[in-house]
Amino acid sequence: MPYDRLDKDIAMMKAAGINVVRIGESTWGTMEPREGEFDFSHLDRVLDAMHKAGIRVIIGTPTYAIPAWMAKRYPDVLATTAAGQNKYGTRQNMDITNPDFRRLAERMIRAMLAHVSDHPAIIGYQVDNETKHYNTSGKQVQQGFVNYLKEKFSSLDAMNDAYGLNYWSNRINSWEEFPEVHESVYTSPVTSINGSVTAAFAAYQRSLVTEYLAWQADIVNEYKKTGQFVTQNFDLDWRGYSYGIQSSVDHFEAAQAMDIAGVDIYHPGQNQLTGAEIALGGDLSRSMKNGQNYFVIETQAQGFPQWTPYPGQLTLQALSHVASGANMVAYWHWASTHNAIETYWKGLLSQDYAENPTYLEAKQIGNKLASLGDNITSLDKQNDVAILFSNEALTAFNEFSFGWGAQQKYNDVLRPFYDSLYRANIETDFLDPSNFADKAENYKLIIIPALYSADDNVLNAIADYVENGGHIVTTFKTGFTDENVKVRHSTQPGGLSEVLGVTYSQFVHPERASLKTEMMNQETADEPLKWWMELVTAQQADVLATYSHPVWKDYAAVTRNQFGKGSATYVATMPTDAQIDAILSSAAATAGLTRSENRFPVVEKNAVNQKGKALRFLFNYSENTVSATISGIEGKELLSGEAIANQKTLSLAPWGVAIIEVTN
Amino acid sequence: MPYDRLDKDIAMMKAAGINVVRIGESTWGTMEPREGEFDFSHLDRVLDAMHKAGIRVIIGTPTYAIPAWMAKRYPDVLATTAAGQNKYGTRQNMDITNPDFRRLAERMIRAMLAHVSDHPAIIGYQVDNETKHYNTSGKQVQQGFVNYLKEKFSSLDAMNDAYGLNYWSNRINSWEEFPEVHESVYTSPVTSINGSVTAAFAAYQRSLVTEYLAWQADIVNEYKKTGQFVTQNFDLDWRGYSYGIQSSVDHFEAAQAMDIAGVDIYHPGQNQLTGAEIALGGDLSRSMKNGQNYFVIETQAQGFPQWTPYPGQLTLQALSHVASGANMVAYWHWASTHNAIETYWKGLLSQDYAENPTYLEAKQIGNKLASLGDNITSLDKQNDVAILFSNEALTAFNEFSFGWGAQQKYNDVLRPFYDSLYRANIETDFLDPSNFADKAENYKLIIIPALYSADDNVLNAIADYVENGGHIVTTFKTGFTDENVKVRHSTQPGGLSEVLGVTYSQFVHPERASLKTEMMNQETADEPLKWWMELVTAQQADVLATYSHPVWKDYAAVTRNQFGKGSATYVATMPTDAQIDAILSSAAATAGLTRSENRFPVVEKNAVNQKGKALRFLFNYSENTVSATISGIEGKELLSGEAIANQKTLSLAPWGVAIIEVTN
Amino acid sequence: MPYDRLDKDIAMMKAAGINVVRIGESTWGTMEPREGEFDFSHLDRVLDAMHKAGIRVIIGTPTYAIPAWMAKRYPDVLATTAAGQNKYGTRQNMDITNPDFRRLAERMIRAMLAHVSDHPAIIGYQVDNETKHYNTSGKQVQQGFVNYLKEKFSSLDAMNDAYGLNYWSNRINSWEEFPEVHESVYTSPVTSINGSVTAAFAAYQRSLVTEYLAWQADIVNEYKKTGQFVTQNFDLDWRGYSYGIQSSVDHFEAAQAMDIAGVDIYHPGQNQLTGAEIALGGDLSRSMKNGQNYFVIETQAQGFPQWTPYPGQLTLQALSHVASGANMVAYWHWASTHNAIETYWKGLLSQDYAENPTYLEAKQIGNKLASLGDNITSLDKQNDVAILFSNEALTAFNEFSFGWGAQQKYNDVLRPFYDSLYRANIETDFLDPSNFADKAENYKLIIIPALYSADDNVLNAIADYVENGGHIVTTFKTGFTDENVKVRHSTQPGGLSEVLGVTYSQFVHPERASLKTEMMNQETADEPLKWWMELVTAQQADVLATYSHPVWKDYAAVTRNQFGKGSATYVATMPTDAQIDAILSSAAATAGLTRSENRFPVVEKNAVNQKGKALRFLFNYSENTVSATISGIEGKELLSGEAIANQKTLSLAPWGVAIIEVTN
Repeated sequence: MPYDRLDKDIAMMKAAGINVVRIGESTWGTMEPREGEFDFSHLDRVLDAMHKAGIRVIIGTPTYAIPAWMAKRYPDVLATTAAGQNKYGTRQNMDITNPDFRRLAERMIRAMLAHVSDHPAIIGYQVDNETKHYNTSGKQVQQGFVNYLKEKFSSLDAMNDAYGLNYWSNRINSWEEFPEVHESVYTSPVTSINGSVTAAFAAYQRSLVTEYLAWQADIVNEYKKTGQFVTQNFDLDWRGYSYGIQSSVDHFEAAQAMDIAGVDIYHPGQNQLTGAEIALGGDLSRSMKNGQNYFVIETQAQGFPQWTPYPGQLTLQALSHVASGANMVAYWHWASTHNAIETYWKGLLSQDYAENPTYLEAKQIGNKLASLGDNITSLDKQNDVAILFSNEALTAFNEFSFGWGAQQKYNDVLRPFYDSLYRANIETDFLDPSNFADKAENYKLIIIPALYSADDNVLNAIADYVENGGHIVTTFKTGFTDENVKVRHSTQPGGLSEVLGVTYSQFVHPERASLKTEMMNQETADEPLKWWMELVTAQQADVLATYSHPVWKDYAAVTRNQFGKGSATYVATMPTDAQIDAILSSAAATAGLTRSENRFPVVEKNAVNQKGKALRFLFNYSENTVSATISGIEGKELLSGEAIANQKTLSLAPWGVAIIEVTN
Repeated sequence: MPYDRLDKDIAMMKAAGINVVRIGESTWGTMEPREGEFDFSHLDRVLDAMHKAGIRVIIGTPTYAIPAWMAKRYPDVLATTAAGQNKYGTRQNMDITNPDFRRLAERMIRAMLAHVSDHPAIIGYQVDNETKHYNTSGKQVQQGFVNYLKEKFSSLDAMNDAYGLNYWSNRINSWEEFPEVHESVYTSPVTSINGSVTAAFAAYQRSLVTEYLAWQADIVNEYKKTGQFVTQNFDLDWRGYSYGIQSSVDHFEAAQAMDIAGVDIYHPGQNQLTGAEIALGGDLSRSMKNGQNYFVIETQAQGFPQWTPYPGQLTLQALSHVASGANMVAYWHWASTHNAIETYWKGLLSQDYAENPTYLEAKQIGNKLASLGDNITSLDKQNDVAILFSNEALTAFNEFSFGWGAQQKYNDVLRPFYDSLYRANIETDFLDPSNFADKAENYKLIIIPALYSADDNVLNAIADYVENGGHIVTTFKTGFTDENVKVRHSTQPGGLSEVLGVTYSQFVHPERASLKTEMMNQETADEPLKWWMELVTAQQADVLATYSHPVWKDYAAVTRNQFGKGSATYVATMPTDAQIDAILSSAAATAGLTRSENRFPVVEKNAVNQKGKALRFLFNYSENTVSATISGIEGKELLSGEAIANQKTLSLAPWGVAIIEVTN
Repeated sequence: MPYDRLDKDIAMMKAAGINVVRIGESTWGTMEPREGEFDFSHLDRVLDAMHKAGIRVIIGTPTYAIPAWMAKRYPDVLATTAAGQNKYGTRQNMDITNPDFRRLAERMIRAMLAHVSDHPAIIGYQVDNETKHYNTSGKQVQQGFVNYLKEKFSSLDAMNDAYGLNYWSNRINSWEEFPEVHESVYTSPVTSINGSVTAAFAAYQRSLVTEYLAWQADIVNEYKKTGQFVTQNFDLDWRGYSYGIQSSVDHFEAAQAMDIAGVDIYHPGQNQLTGAEIALGGDLSRSMKNGQNYFVIETQAQGFPQWTPYPGQLTLQALSHVASGANMVAYWHWASTHNAIETYWKGLLSQDYAENPTYLEAKQIGNKLASLGDNITSLDKQNDVAILFSNEALTAFNEFSFGWGAQQKYNDVLRPFYDSLYRANIETDFLDPSNFADKAENYKLIIIPALYSADDNVLNAIADYVENGGHIVTTFKTGFTDENVKVRHSTQPGGLSEVLGVTYSQFVHPERASLKTEMMNQETADEPLKWWMELVTAQQADVLATYSHPVWKDYAAVTRNQFGKGSATYVATMPTDAQIDAILSSAAATAGLTRSENRFPVVEKNAVNQKGKALRFLFNYSENTVSATISGIEGKELLSGEAIANQKTLSLAPWGVAIIEVTN
């Protein structure tokens, strides 16, 4: 702070209806200025002031940024990666398995909690922040990985076979000679050319995150009072904003140690704002804890210059989070910093700490939320559609993508399918292999993009789901390799050939290729296919589309097979967005889904509130006034208080929102 | 040399009117073949031969390329940077602070000067060459930086506050734990995420250059005779040619130890030749030493294949240097090397050492210059316009640019403004914060591009200048941060809000944005804005342009404020070249500048010669014959000897030149 | 293998007419699981089974991929390059000069050969695989290089002069101070700025490969039986496929230790298939051993997704190899691997090991080849045209290319000339400086692209060749530097100025430049020139083309000089493909070549079989049916058995082939 202005800040927060703040995170250097010497006076001061103002506090453990003295005294705390040992300076540079780091972190956490845990302002704790493994792969991690493999495999022979290590003389003939490994065959300098081994290493690295977060949560649980929670701020695959599945953390595993899931959601803004990331991040977070509501622990206020919200967008964003099931929407951060790397990642206030248009809109949001109160909190979401994703498939897929040098990643396949559902207002949950068998039956339709690495259990569970009446849409590469990223030697699609009623043994890159089909109009069918084409022959399946191509024209591109009581649709190529829309629309019809009459940019989300009332949220994700279809609905629009009756449409202002409490 | 041809070379030089050569530079390995064993026979031979021929000699100290034995015996002489320790092989690979390097360099310089300094051929000395800090940042430099900070700040708290080090736990609680720093937050591996710290480090690195050059100059001064000079060959920001302000040297500081400023000027050629770099390099060099004439120590003869001059261009270039105030135009180099990295950076002669079209044109130039004699040397330039640049602003700006990953640098902002003045034939000087307060009053109009980091003193001096009747044009980001790259918490534009009569607290990237204004024609106004848009509200200022944008249309883009007796124009966005032309034209009118009637490609430069005669140089920077306006002028064209009288225009051949000695 | 299926594999191989397999390569970790402990049971099993089935075996020494235990116990076996020491994991990571590696490799090879060499299935041996120097440049290699230089030069002065080391103080005053060098001035970190030194180092590295392969061949020769051969699998410059001359091996030198040349040929497929790489790889391999037939040791079956052959292409490719003189066409590999980096580099079988369209076409090829038998093996090729290439020129050219940052390499110049000949059905041999003087007289026309570095001997041999009636076409940069990459100080084109009858001393990059000429139609002449333009003045030569350019229009672009009994055509710029076609067509006419009436996509290859019958192969490299001209030929089409008589054309199906046994 340029000067003491805590009271002024709190007054401005109160005026904006802000009722929770998060503190503590990344302040280790301030709270333990010298090893073993603690100073919590800043925490005390803020806790007291917030309590006085009626603002509740989430305390974060400060462990994701280490103090300078630690790096100096315990240099091995800095993680070693393929690029060498990290230098001090940035956050998230430590080896989360390092014993000194663990010892010092535990002492810090315990000292802090012992000091503050009785404070009445506290409602919960966040352990660490945006935790990942940061590619730690020094000596100790290498040894840990060998131990992990020893447990995983009954013998060296079993491992050599599973990973195909005879190739290029990579065979391991004694555990002592096991070489250094990194998370990818593309790591430079090259240590492994075996994507099976690197995928196993990546899985091991993810397991370190799960263990580390559970370890912190266990410590905090010793201090936590009744009614308080422990959360973590999970974040997604980052492409300048939250894009898709996080490759470095098994979210469903890691979330088990948390009382409630928390998430970072950053997204494009201004006229690139679509709300898709808000929905995706929310669906994923809700699914981490079995459908439970979640916290948006960080999202953008002003953010980057390209995000500075247009009038109305901040409100639209906040209510979109709520409609997805968020029970908190927290901005990162209150006010912009005056120095350092995030100077241009702006909070609600600019560096002048004065009112500005974004803050003023936040004030309006605070007032709206206060007035709506329990009508829109702890919403219950019940969806008919799920997406099955897999961190194992992601890692394995990304090793090979569509060929050496190809830039497309697993999320580039998943997102277009997710986004197509989003545009069609088909709300979704997420499943991963850890809970698929248990939960699949809750869904009418499950989308399974590129499940490139999967064990027999999950493939069998998919088969059972279809046989029992479920419907799936799955794509190229699904089932291609087993849990060890070993290509299945059975007929492809591996493990699902019978369910899908198709076979293939060759594939090409699309060139001069589009679709020949009656599922969509000609113009859409003629759009060039992307990235991958399997040369599929239908055995039992119906061919919904073939390739339009001078040579490959006799092969199937999209098929659907009746299998047991259900159906299995196979998409053997990467279609364009419009082609996906048509394919998923057909699959939705086959699955008997009830469909919304609205399409993007009108976004519709449905939920039931704590009072048992059905809510329909309608969002206008465009800069034009649009008309949302609401035929058949009666009730009340909560923001305006106006009655909805006998009307087919509702006008939504640019970036506007309506919340209809449905009474019929 | 492939064979002994010194006499032949000298004869060809003489024929071309060459009367000065520069020798010695980078020949350490030849002059000290073994440690402590000196051999100056080559120097002697060349000095004698030149003297005999009446050609004067500048001797360079040979220190910018170390001999192989030094790297072998004193490996720490090779600088350590973030990328590790340099290897032997290239030039400029040494740590200019290394004690062994200093000791050996001093012995070498003293031995050479003791040997040659009585030679009558010598007219002056060059210390080192194109000196920079080469990112030296090894242990000793790190310790030096900590000492520098200790002196700069009264306490650790003061430093932590100034640099905002609490953020991400970067707080320094004892000097011993101060971590390794490099010149940018983008240095890989990352050592600092704090642009305030890295800017301070960069300033410290620049101070090493100043100290090093002064140290060499002090040594040489001990040997220098009356009438001899010490110079340095300063070079500019390099983008395949001399582009803008040098980031690694404080030119105005470093030039203080020199008797005369020298400069490298390389520039695009053939049909990309505009002369802008010749003007910029000249204006900057002239400004280094208070308007004094300067040396063009290196410029291209043939140069690269893309530079090989069209007929006439070599003459055009030479006279352009002279018209900017150069008292020497030296080609690098005489003849092309037969080996090594600069084989294709060709001199006046190709590797066959025979006459060629470029040499033949140089002969003509030599004859012309000889015939013009003192009429065009030691020209006096008096300009009404200056540009205020700042190395501190440059460093700080470049850390953040327009966002993570943005490629635009400080010079990308400065150059379009400079170039606009150049196209309009508004000749300029340069100021930096070290002399702004003293010199500003000499100018009617001062352009201040992106003064992103500045202390209160310089901002106050700007305010005083305007208040006292000066006129400024400044841009977005000026005043945003203080001398520690800490964002000002006052209302933006920081420190100048009142002078400019505007405020802002938000900014965006332009998308679908252009200008709405009457300052220029519609087509120009409609050109899309670039890189940055501050959402400015005029308080007292007149709004000269607003944004043409669906959302941001109520904010000001260009404003002008009467403040005291002067005016302050604010450009809140990066305009296109044509838009800048209109804005600067308006500012020039407001400042009451006398304007040339010629526009680029006719370039006009004015000066007064030693005899007190006004000279007007007219250059045709195009491949077409053009007509220059000369209404109102009488006198003589010096190259042709023809009288200029009662004529409105003068025809200039493609790439042609006229020099009018004005008599009215 | 996912399960034991050797018998099934062999049955499928037999069905496809496969009669040779290659085994052993890269299986060191399996054959020597622990240091000094050998297990050849896999070899025995496969040898026995192949022998029983009548399939012959080539045994590869397994040395190009080291076992894990070796890296652990002898870490220095891993090569050190400019980037540091290699890590274990990939193949070709070792220092081929390391004494431990050599000792262990020799023991391995001797143990294996002692074990298998009596086996009747063996027809020959391959030493190592795709051997190169892998940029090994650790301490020992540096010392070896210094020794190499000591032998090469009579004194340090001679070396300093030859390499121009005075420049930038690089002079070496004692051998002890010789600094570390790497293969290019672009190696990072920079160690040398002298392309003469780096070219010498690159030549030394290539000599290591020659020595290493000869060393292995010597060992194998001790065990080899009469009638068996030793080969090596040479590979070409790799650009995602086999592109041009290999920079890391002197193929003609290294092949001397082999009984027969072997080669990798991979090439674009599907509608990018042209056959040019098949021809180039074949011509080069045939030329390595004096016109002798060669083995295609690896070529693609399915290969990458972008290569999966269209129907007919596999046959077209196989017969194209045969028509170039191949005596073996071997696919890499039999079946696709289930793990690791080459999972998507597919063999004849996919991972399901079942029949697929590519395998089925291979079956047809096997049957065709069996039925044609000796009619198409050991073909004799006699060509009138050769290309002179040079590894020294390649290395030196690539250091400088067309300027700093230019991406074009030597092969980018060579290939367009080769490809033009290929399109015109002018079959070629290759020469390099080691055999040019001896063999040149066998050719009517020799193409010499960019012979940038060459000693006087080869330039004199070229002059002699022309004087005695030979015809050459050579390009820009030929003769520019000597064998030490020192620019010749004689008039350029260095050493050939008189032969070519032209001179130049300047050059530029083409901009707005095309040709003015009557050698081609206007549209072709107007195509913009590429990369380089020498400003050539004809002294005795005829000017065939000048530059169409606003400034450089008086200089010659293409000239031809009668010199003695022959002619010398100079191409001073890089023309477009169509321009090259016209220039080479003119040169072919001047040289009195008999020309094919067919042009690409009809590819014609001629040879004489063992029975002394002339064969004309006709290939259709397009997806349309085309008509090949065969006027004047009588005989029999061998694939169909149909008579060819009194007909002017022959229809070729898409990707079709005809083989005419000529009887007239």
